[in-house]
Amino acid sequence: MTHSDASPDTGSEQARREEELLERVLRSYDACADPRLKELLQGLVRHLHAFIRDVRLTEEEWQKAIEFLTRVGRITDGKRQEFVLLSDTLGASMQTITVNNQAYGDATEATVFGPFFVEDAPLIRLGGDMAGEASGEPCWVEGTVRDTDGNAVPGARIEVWEADADGFYDVQYGDGRTAGRAHLFTGPDGEYRFWAITPTPYPIPHDGPVGEMLTAAGRSPMRASHLHFMVIAEGYRTLVTHIFVRGDELLESDAVFGVRKSLIKDFERLPAGTPPPDGRALDGTWSKVRFDIVLAPSGAAPQEEPPH
Amino acid sequence: MTHSDASPDTGSEQARREEELLERVLRSYDACADPRLKELLQGLVRHLHAFIRDVRLTEEEWQKAIEFLTRVGRITDGKRQEFVLLSDTLGASMQTITVNNQAYGDATEATVFGPFFVEDAPLIRLGGDMAGEASGEPCWVEGTVRDTDGNAVPGARIEVWEADADGFYDVQYGDGRTAGRAHLFTGPDGEYRFWAITPTPYPIPHDGPVGEMLTAAGRSPMRASHLHFMVIAEGYRTLVTHIFVRGDELLESDAVFGVRKSLIKDFERLPAGTPPPDGRALDGTWSKVRFDIVLAPSGAAPQEEPPH
Repeated sequence: MTHSDASPDTGSEQARREEELLERVLRSYDACADPRLKELLQGLVRHLHAFIRDVRLTEEEWQKAIEFLTRVGRITDGKRQEFVLLSDTLGASMQTITVNNQAYGDATEATVFGPFFVEDAPLIRLGGDMAGEASGEPCWVEGTVRDTDGNAVPGARIEVWEADADGFYDVQYGDGRTAGRAHLFTGPDGEYRFWAITPTPYPIPHDGPVGEMLTAAGRSPMRASHLHFMVIAEGYRTLVTHIFVRGDELLESDAVFGVRKSLIKDFERLPAGTPPPDGRALDGTWSKVRFDIVLAPSGAAPQEEPPH
Repeated sequence: MTHSDASPDTGSEQARREEELLERVLRSYDACADPRLKELLQGLVRHLHAFIRDVRLTEEEWQKAIEFLTRVGRITDGKRQEFVLLSDTLGASMQTITVNNQAYGDATEATVFGPFFVEDAPLIRLGGDMAGEASGEPCWVEGTVRDTDGNAVPGARIEVWEADADGFYDVQYGDGRTAGRAHLFTGPDGEYRFWAITPTPYPIPHDGPVGEMLTAAGRSPMRASHLHFMVIAEGYRTLVTHIFVRGDELLESDAVFGVRKSLIKDFERLPAGTPPPDGRALDGTWSKVRFDIVLAPSGAAPQEEPPH
């Protein structure tokens, strides 16, 4: 029995086998009782198979992917969420935010929540200081909260949090401290003001597999300088966002793709001795920034709860 | 300042934001020194973003996906590979096999390797017994190994392994036993023969998050009955495959999509007292199966061009 004309069957037979397998996998989910879960799983299967077929993933590469995911799982614990970092650095977190925070008039844009939010941050009054013992240059932050019709939103709850000048959030010290974190409420004209510290850049945790991926990809782990805001008011879509610093050289290379042009603000530096708006006694330079916030109405978004 | 005509901008502005983000993420990989790694990461980003945008993943669903992956990571250890199980049950393992084991003449089709292969399985002679202490009905397996031109392949190494009638591989007992596992070499005419046990079905480990996913999806964790083969011969593409049992009711619902029609074989059951080919003394029934194997040449490894 000879088959001297045997040759690789590169065209329709190979594609047919690949498509037939995909179809079998999709059909296996037909009995899924939850229609949304079915949609998600079948969508996942379609796109995962499309990726494997598109790049012609080799068996050795598949094995390396399994080992990579295993290492991501191994380094993840109560204090370190490497899957979130992986999602962040692939832009998947930011794309999910973008899909769910649809453009609505001039409503302020949303960006990633990040892993450092903490419930029950201290309450400060208008003009209070959220920095506490966090190291860094004092920064006066002020603005208004309005809706897309231009009406003021009094009594809106604003949560703010940021890393200190050493590049760490309070929770990263592991000693129970609270610093660089607070909440306050807008006044009768929707106005707000508080002291923070001028944001400075820091690297995402990069001593794990995600850090390896960034290095292999020639990418930086640095986040552009930012100050986190979450704004909650009844009848309005909760806003989770940051403001970034105009002129920061990292704006184009934020490791988690969180930067939006509309969120880049002008931080003006004042020389030592310049009196601040509230008469606070300061030793050296300080900065100030204005951030006017516009909230979309509740009906403008699918999500009810802020992301965790 | 009123914007009473503000409305959700569902069309081009939203799509533009999503595409602009995707583009920024792709560009971040441009400095990747390894061209294949760049291709893989950019392909991954494209397909991951396409999935998120296609299903309109919510922020709550993103959070659930992170929690799911975290549980997959937590249950994975030296003895349990939940990421492999996840890949298997999404058909990603089988698609990778399919992409890399292109149809070549009448070369025997490949299927998933599975997690239970062990190096240095005992050597048996032609006609020897690979079952050892594994429980189950004796099964006589014979056939030839040829190439796609019909020439015999003498001295090919055949690794075989299977679960016992209780549904467990030797390694799953955790007591160091070796059973249902061996290797042998084809004779001068490419012929082989050995005793195994008739394959029976078993469930993939389903007490973890992958098992939850299967249950939620209305899917079974059962694998169709099979006997694993790996055939290695110099100058030929290594074949990793299984044979399945014609008539097995699980053929259409194998949890890892490993079944291929060409790998379904006829296992004939012989009544108690029927003399087996080698004169072995047997108590009850036994079965026999013929599996002729055809190896593709080494050069028939993954094609360079996508088939579509």
